[in-house]
Amino acid sequence: MGISIQHLLGLEGVSRDDITLILDTANSFHEVLQREIKVVPPLRGKTVVNLFYENSTRTRISFELAEKRLSANPVSFSTSASSVSKGESLRDTIRNIEAMKIDMVVVRHSSPGVPLFLTHCTNAVVINAGDGLHEHPTQGLLDMMTIRRTFGKLDGLKAVLVGDVLHSRVARSNIWGMKTMGMEVVACGPPTLLPQHPDQLPCRFTDNLHEAVEGADVVMLLRLQLERMDKGLIPSIREYRERYGFDMDKLAWLPQHAVIMHPGPINRGIELASDVADCGRSVILDQVTNGVAVRMAVLYLLGGGEND
Amino acid sequence: MGISIQHLLGLEGVSRDDITLILDTANSFHEVLQREIKVVPPLRGKTVVNLFYENSTRTRISFELAEKRLSANPVSFSTSASSVSKGESLRDTIRNIEAMKIDMVVVRHSSPGVPLFLTHCTNAVVINAGDGLHEHPTQGLLDMMTIRRTFGKLDGLKAVLVGDVLHSRVARSNIWGMKTMGMEVVACGPPTLLPQHPDQLPCRFTDNLHEAVEGADVVMLLRLQLERMDKGLIPSIREYRERYGFDMDKLAWLPQHAVIMHPGPINRGIELASDVADCGRSVILDQVTNGVAVRMAVLYLLGGGEND
Amino acid sequence: MGISIQHLLGLEGVSRDDITLILDTANSFHEVLQREIKVVPPLRGKTVVNLFYENSTRTRISFELAEKRLSANPVSFSTSASSVSKGESLRDTIRNIEAMKIDMVVVRHSSPGVPLFLTHCTNAVVINAGDGLHEHPTQGLLDMMTIRRTFGKLDGLKAVLVGDVLHSRVARSNIWGMKTMGMEVVACGPPTLLPQHPDQLPCRFTDNLHEAVEGADVVMLLRLQLERMDKGLIPSIREYRERYGFDMDKLAWLPQHAVIMHPGPINRGIELASDVADCGRSVILDQVTNGVAVRMAVLYLLGGGEND
Repeated sequence: MGISIQHLLGLEGVSRDDITLILDTANSFHEVLQREIKVVPPLRGKTVVNLFYENSTRTRISFELAEKRLSANPVSFSTSASSVSKGESLRDTIRNIEAMKIDMVVVRHSSPGVPLFLTHCTNAVVINAGDGLHEHPTQGLLDMMTIRRTFGKLDGLKAVLVGDVLHSRVARSNIWGMKTMGMEVVACGPPTLLPQHPDQLPCRFTDNLHEAVEGADVVMLLRLQLERMDKGLIPSIREYRERYGFDMDKLAWLPQHAVIMHPGPINRGIELASDVADCGRSVILDQVTNGVAVRMAVLYLLGGGEND
Repeated sequence: MGISIQHLLGLEGVSRDDITLILDTANSFHEVLQREIKVVPPLRGKTVVNLFYENSTRTRISFELAEKRLSANPVSFSTSASSVSKGESLRDTIRNIEAMKIDMVVVRHSSPGVPLFLTHCTNAVVINAGDGLHEHPTQGLLDMMTIRRTFGKLDGLKAVLVGDVLHSRVARSNIWGMKTMGMEVVACGPPTLLPQHPDQLPCRFTDNLHEAVEGADVVMLLRLQLERMDKGLIPSIREYRERYGFDMDKLAWLPQHAVIMHPGPINRGIELASDVADCGRSVILDQVTNGVAVRMAVLYLLGGGEND
Repeated sequence: MGISIQHLLGLEGVSRDDITLILDTANSFHEVLQREIKVVPPLRGKTVVNLFYENSTRTRISFELAEKRLSANPVSFSTSASSVSKGESLRDTIRNIEAMKIDMVVVRHSSPGVPLFLTHCTNAVVINAGDGLHEHPTQGLLDMMTIRRTFGKLDGLKAVLVGDVLHSRVARSNIWGMKTMGMEVVACGPPTLLPQHPDQLPCRFTDNLHEAVEGADVVMLLRLQLERMDKGLIPSIREYRERYGFDMDKLAWLPQHAVIMHPGPINRGIELASDVADCGRSVILDQVTNGVAVRMAVLYLLGGGEND
């Protein structure tokens, strides 16, 4: 009946039942967010440490809001303030924090595998808030929640992820999760920004956007890190925008019912034109709201749901 | 019966009734601050985002204390940690934060008009905590609260604001608010630090301090930004201090009942001598206490007071 | 019956009764930390300001957790965000914060005596979280708590503090507290890292580690600040490690029942070998847990215990 995972390290390997349970629970919390009083008691007295080794405003705030709305005690901890500068190892940091008797750790780190490593150092529940190029599972969950709330289902839908798939942990989490939930996934971008070993991910890859989006229900634009250009991975912003930047002309290629998503923050006018970002078919702000609900669900199910 | 404004963007245009209601409510909260237990429940479950794009210790702490004492959930957010560094627009930042279902935003920004702009991007209540050279309305309110608690009234009193009036949002908010409340306001400073279009503010301007303070009930010294000297706006610190720095000699020019105010932080020995700052006629620390009370009142009236 | 001190500035001069009361109270809070719900109500509605002028992750988090678990309202304040950059004096900062009606201040500062100075500027309770090379009393208390929980007593036990005693406020607090509690204390390190006026501290000093640890019940390794080498106080890391770095070979010099302590963060492989740090005789993680409990006890006894 409960969730079968102990930690949320990624969506690869998470079962259909677990994802469904998280999305169902998130729907209940979505209702809570519409109320005047948005606080519920299930994690009262629990301590959650937010261990952000990479800067992040929206993900950190979204987790903090989720924690406070579940009545947990969040303690936040960011790179510059950390003992890292005193040369302490990550393992010692986490074991020390755990010795303070905490219940959960939400961790973001530039190295893939850090959340997994932490599960070996602590008995606390570990939630991955983004680890290097590996995964960003709560983002994948909030994206699927948004799609399911839009279409009433996930099974059989087609999603196209557009842009820098190679460097996107958001894309990886979505590809694994969507596949598990029975969706068709196409990843599309310039060949230099697609994985070199495409067979390792359960989706189709293409550099032809027009062909990719045919019959799509969802188009998700990925954020273009502008430093990719410096590394020679894209010839110019202008050329990138012409081929992959999603504007009103390209929107016309989609079925009428298709929706536009973006994990944010948007480079307006680069990977996504402003008028498309703000049009009626964009569900980008729904993604943000659902992010709080899905994080409440994950915290609740892994951290305290079993007590109720 | 309730407050007629929806947001607090400035004191220009705010009615006498609204200001009176805020000051009356602040007096009740002032009582709460004298208690052993200083927490009351009216904003329980409400989320307030403190969006500080300019450094500020005392204003940020004062708002955070006000929020926590009303049982709200504050989430704080400062420049360096923000998505600004990822090139996200202010509009996208605020719309994203609002999508997380927040109730109120307290914003400080170096550009005038940012709080007004935010009211166009979000349905949340917006409170200006200082915007460029425009206004700092909660400072104006706490100053008037301090004067009213000292003299039992505002109507008919004379206040003199001394120093860098040109660059002071504190002065602007006080001038508008005091005028509305029936006070006489004189702004005094070197001609280079007075507004070039004095007719745009409802007060009298002069560079003669001795004449200005005649019959004053309140003298408020403004903080001198020391970088004004580099820009050639004042000849030297020494000369500024001689003409406008408030010391015991100049204190003797005032009526016996007059009080000394300063918004802080003080440059001791420049705009205000240490012995005057700490003498029995200084109400500077009362201003700080009243700041928490007045912010509780504003948050309460705009954010949740209508539900009780 | 209650505690006789009003503030906790150091352990020098604190009575045996007061230390015993703090350690007894900390034992009760240690039990609370084992519970599912780790929050208790005694400081509800009280405001504690954490004024950290020096970076510190673990001490700050430990205090914040202690405050939240006592239901206090913590407001945190770190160097970079402070008014220090606006040239405000420490005295003005603290008087302003106090004017916001706070109850307690936890302060860490690089200058010795700052916590004492603050008691002259404010009526709030002041707790020293480390002041320069002077004292770090809650660290001394958590160390004694750990020893007492290990051996069931303090009286008559022998502790050896090893390393940079000269620059260690941790050592100073332990030496004063342990002496008061009837322990024998030996401080051991290279002559350049021992105090020049050894008669000012109630312990024995030696540079001979083998002789020092004879019959010891507790060996506490101090963190070596690596910049000491640049200043010529130690010839090389390698030589330091050979003479004072605690490894399995030196562990064999101790009685079977002796335990290993370290205030953290550890320079693994320098003052303490990794296998010793992680062996069954290390109580380093107990120190961290006890740190939260002892800080809860200090906050409770100084801040609100009298009301219950």
